[in-house]
Amino acid sequence: MDPTQISHLALDIGGTLIKLVYFSANGDYSEESRNGCSVVKGRLCFAKFETRKIDDCLEFIRFNILHHSGVQQPNGEGHDKLYVKTVPREAFTYLDGQKKFVEIDHNDLYPYLLVNIGSGVSMIKVDGDGKYERISGTSLGGGTFLGLGKLLTKCKSFDELLELSHHGNNRVIDMLVGDIYGGTDYSKIGLSSTAIASSFGKAISDGKELEDYQPEDVARSLLRMISNNIGQIAYLNALRFGLKRIFFGGFFIRGLEYTMDTISVAVHFWSRGEAKAMFLRHEGFLGALGAFTSYNDQSHNDLKPHHHTVQRAILNCSGHNFRHIPVTSNLNESETIECSINLV
Amino acid sequence: MDPTQISHLALDIGGTLIKLVYFSANGDYSEESRNGCSVVKGRLCFAKFETRKIDDCLEFIRFNILHHSGVQQPNGEGHDKLYVKTVPREAFTYLDGQKKFVEIDHNDLYPYLLVNIGSGVSMIKVDGDGKYERISGTSLGGGTFLGLGKLLTKCKSFDELLELSHHGNNRVIDMLVGDIYGGTDYSKIGLSSTAIASSFGKAISDGKELEDYQPEDVARSLLRMISNNIGQIAYLNALRFGLKRIFFGGFFIRGLEYTMDTISVAVHFWSRGEAKAMFLRHEGFLGALGAFTSYNDQSHNDLKPHHHTVQRAILNCSGHNFRHIPVTSNLNESETIECSINLV
Repeated sequence: MDPTQISHLALDIGGTLIKLVYFSANGDYSEESRNGCSVVKGRLCFAKFETRKIDDCLEFIRFNILHHSGVQQPNGEGHDKLYVKTVPREAFTYLDGQKKFVEIDHNDLYPYLLVNIGSGVSMIKVDGDGKYERISGTSLGGGTFLGLGKLLTKCKSFDELLELSHHGNNRVIDMLVGDIYGGTDYSKIGLSSTAIASSFGKAISDGKELEDYQPEDVARSLLRMISNNIGQIAYLNALRFGLKRIFFGGFFIRGLEYTMDTISVAVHFWSRGEAKAMFLRHEGFLGALGAFTSYNDQSHNDLKPHHHTVQRAILNCSGHNFRHIPVTSNLNESETIECSINLV
Repeated sequence: MDPTQISHLALDIGGTLIKLVYFSANGDYSEESRNGCSVVKGRLCFAKFETRKIDDCLEFIRFNILHHSGVQQPNGEGHDKLYVKTVPREAFTYLDGQKKFVEIDHNDLYPYLLVNIGSGVSMIKVDGDGKYERISGTSLGGGTFLGLGKLLTKCKSFDELLELSHHGNNRVIDMLVGDIYGGTDYSKIGLSSTAIASSFGKAISDGKELEDYQPEDVARSLLRMISNNIGQIAYLNALRFGLKRIFFGGFFIRGLEYTMDTISVAVHFWSRGEAKAMFLRHEGFLGALGAFTSYNDQSHNDLKPHHHTVQRAILNCSGHNFRHIPVTSNLNESETIECSINLV
């Protein structure tokens, strides 16, 4: 990739990961022009680095001359105002193994709750374009899953831990309602026998040590514990403010079916079917995309942490001003998507 | 203790512990009589067994002939209706190391939220005498604390784990807001630099193994994670139903200052000072006391699990019908309190 073609850098520095979004023009500058806008074609690129290795990230930026930002017109004048287009089939629900894309009426989008699951979890009430407030959060997030997971299973990475959890059985360590009430449902209070009464509760009395458990079972219990808890707290906050939609994003999810399923079931269970969890295909880069799309926003001139910009990606991906970007797969690191930028 | 003097047995069989309350008359039968009631003097006794060792409990009951229940009058006629008296200074708040007893106006007691922290957590909305509903709960309870604690620290018992946590420092493993934002408070969204951003989040990137951490630091992080989470979910549920008071009970608490402090801080933080956590001196035996005081209640003829009776102890300890039982210390296993029973 020719560094001179790279511009428009946005960073989201989190507790665990630095997410980086940048635009790389492909040289087809001003090939198109309509509605008084010049159009630059290129690709939107994504990269991530561990926050503790921030020097690698800075080196990457230096090497690619990303810090010389701004799209240059051939005449050398800079343009700062840009729009990224809407992404079709961005939001979906996930239940019983079925992914279902949700068509959102933009006139009926607000208010919604955005739950960003990073190392910790932030919950942001979004009332309109640029109108948002961090109303809640929880310290039990992706960092807890990976942190506890590493200590308990000796896994080295998030992916490894998730892969493990996929093959585990949480009933080995979790104490179920049926374990207490003798295997029968306890419908009077709405609890089935397979509901988890106490996460890791069986470890109390099994007389087993850590080594006696299969790491995959431990990973599975951990994933269910964290996902369930986030789903419950999100629902309670949505209820509190009368929010109909809950969007879940952040690197914890990463399009993983079991994670999404657990969160969906939690929201379904606690809301008695009245609320639905929705997921986003660009989850991991929400903050960076948000920063990217609010590039020329005056209010972003002073340094702000990622929480403030997290919700803008959705806003911008679903607003009226945007065209479709063709996206063929979920976004992950090292992936790029074709993209046009309108210069106005 | 003379087995023939023992009567009125009540059991609360939970996921981890069986709690047992029974009355032992001291032979001063009918020494007093007023308001048409005979009064039996004696002691209220408490015992607990591990649920997995239920045979020990049954043996204890058989040995003490507790299953021959009902207070016998000298003429051999049985009395079934009994009242236990109110307990003074039962409820208290705990904040900044200060225990403060709360005088509750019985005309302004309801509705309240009762949070029973056993292996799992049940949250019960109590609207009046006998009017209650299980509205929520969480699987992250005492069983999670001890279960995960055992796996992570090789502790053998709850007491040992709590003692450990007392000497630990959660900042070693928890990722704090200050760790992400460079040590400064982030007051815009109401987060201080010492707030926990991600429980166990530092374990992600420390490059340490479980053995490299001090068990006391792990125990402390675990205790804060669970206590915080319960406080938050309890507050959100209280808010949902407009409940002013939140009582916390169950064996998880056991009068432990740090636990109560963490729960109090969580409720204070999430409610922005508007709600207060309250604790009870008889926390561990709430369910068993409830069953005990509803001894002759027709609705209790069929077997019911402990959740249904949990709230009755408070009701009965604070209702109009009761006199004071002198209680000099917190109730724990093997402790007894002097008690009189009115036979009507």
